Amino acid sequence: MTMEKPYVIGMDMGGTNTVFGIVDTRGNVISKSAIKTGTHTDVNLYINDIHAELSKLIEAAGGIGKIKGIGVGAPNGNYYTGNIEFAPNLPWKGIVPFANLMADKFGVPAALTNDANAAAVGEMTYGAAHGMKNFIMITLGTGVGSGIVIDGKVVYGHDGFAGELGHVNVMRNNGRLCGCGKSGCLETYASATGVARSAREILETSTKESLLRNIPVESITSKDVFDAAMQGDEVAKEIFNYTGKILGESFADFVAFSAPEAIVLFGGLSKAGDLILNPIKENMEKNLLPIWKGKVKVLFSELKEADAAVLGASALAWEL
Amino acid sequence: MTMEKPYVIGMDMGGTNTVFGIVDTRGNVISKSAIKTGTHTDVNLYINDIHAELSKLIEAAGGIGKIKGIGVGAPNGNYYTGNIEFAPNLPWKGIVPFANLMADKFGVPAALTNDANAAAVGEMTYGAAHGMKNFIMITLGTGVGSGIVIDGKVVYGHDGFAGELGHVNVMRNNGRLCGCGKSGCLETYASATGVARSAREILETSTKESLLRNIPVESITSKDVFDAAMQGDEVAKEIFNYTGKILGESFADFVAFSAPEAIVLFGGLSKAGDLILNPIKENMEKNLLPIWKGKVKVLFSELKEADAAVLGASALAWEL
Repeated sequence: MTMEKPYVIGMDMGGTNTVFGIVDTRGNVISKSAIKTGTHTDVNLYINDIHAELSKLIEAAGGIGKIKGIGVGAPNGNYYTGNIEFAPNLPWKGIVPFANLMADKFGVPAALTNDANAAAVGEMTYGAAHGMKNFIMITLGTGVGSGIVIDGKVVYGHDGFAGELGHVNVMRNNGRLCGCGKSGCLETYASATGVARSAREILETSTKESLLRNIPVESITSKDVFDAAMQGDEVAKEIFNYTGKILGESFADFVAFSAPEAIVLFGGLSKAGDLILNPIKENMEKNLLPIWKGKVKVLFSELKEADAAVLGASALAWEL
Repeated sequence: MTMEKPYVIGMDMGGTNTVFGIVDTRGNVISKSAIKTGTHTDVNLYINDIHAELSKLIEAAGGIGKIKGIGVGAPNGNYYTGNIEFAPNLPWKGIVPFANLMADKFGVPAALTNDANAAAVGEMTYGAAHGMKNFIMITLGTGVGSGIVIDGKVVYGHDGFAGELGHVNVMRNNGRLCGCGKSGCLETYASATGVARSAREILETSTKESLLRNIPVESITSKDVFDAAMQGDEVAKEIFNYTGKILGESFADFVAFSAPEAIVLFGGLSKAGDLILNPIKENMEKNLLPIWKGKVKVLFSELKEADAAVLGASALAWEL
């Protein structure tokens, strides 16, 4: 049996680094490399550098004829247009027709979406959501992102930007200021930086003993909170309970919207395991309508973390 | 030109009355009738009575051969199964395979969904959302219902019950108790009964003069509040501003989910016009992410109120 185009390229564009790899139909990343993003002020030079680096991987895989297409996960990526639009953390301003530039450069089709949507496609194609038609992917990283899948398709909405669940309001009064300009966004509580903010707040407004008091309050990270909680520190556990409560309450509202089979968690914070999962489940259940109680799964991603972003982006390319 | 099946039947089942009619392709209700719902403790006798009444309309329209199908809007209606499941306001308990019972009785296909989803299909087929592929229908009646349309299709979710936006939380602390058993649901603030509750709260916690003080506080209705506001009553206007603020804030979160082109309002409260629309728009805009500011429409239904529920349900039948 011959299979003409057994591979796709997945590319995960972050503000600092861009990682790309060649992926087979079963979700194996057969080769991988990376370049810096932030140092490229001209997008064409950035693409030239990607091309130079990727060409080696493509040759090793048997040439461009083996590649079905390129999938890109990028901040503020618009699936409908293939453009990156006004991304605050990238060096190129305004609207960049990135998918078209990539397709022209490589001579294969290219598709683009934001990183959380890419993660959702990856999870559906290769991971915990395999076989599911209705689920919500929540990425708990520096920020909180989301990818919503309904009837087996990512929801892009009228303009291509649907699924910004990190920016639903969870605190109407005196909510924390968010990078987006609003206050009280989920992201300001449930991201890694949100957990660090919660740590500072709790330490500064109480006199409880805590291992975290051995660290200068301004430099506490979510990893420090995790480490302390694993040693049984009560304040650290309280911080995870608080974070999980806000997430769980929000998840109940998300369920009321799209009635998913599962909510899948991905990203740094999900490494906290039961410390975060237990309060999420408890508070989600408490806030669900009776028809959904005990029926909606909360799962961790099954994609290997180092490969997940590339896998997610690559999955887009199978649909081309 | 002959058209074999130019009509559908639309049926709107409420706890008190059931209204049904014959509808043509352009959304004209060519005939209509009704029976009581609540007096029928046996669903088969209920269907017999509907059949007796509807048969006259069907004969007048040229016989059952002219009817493409039957669409039913019913409380707790599950589109996937055609069942009515555990509807608290209907006389039949448990699971009733209503669509199948109707199809068997009439010999034409039947589909069923909840009333808000039916309204969304009606608005998309004949009304304000004609031509739209992404919008959210919000029904502001005794309760708050919703029908979510993404990519031209109603969202039913994993289990058929998606779109319960009346039960998202809008008040985490000391929220009002909801009929669903939870506290702080949107419905407890933004329904007709919610407006009446707000009136009582504001009148009881302030000493402001108001025309509403001429009415016994326990019997104030949303209609009374509307009438007072139209006469310039400041307390009544404050009540609409409060209701609109809660709706607008919630709508901003709904937009973050599915990025709709429009949110369409239907039901008694939408008769308040600008009194409710202005604070909704103002507070939605304030809470939208920058990418959506000024871009999401808030519209009133364009379906004639007396026919809307029947039209909405009938639109389901064109898809059969």
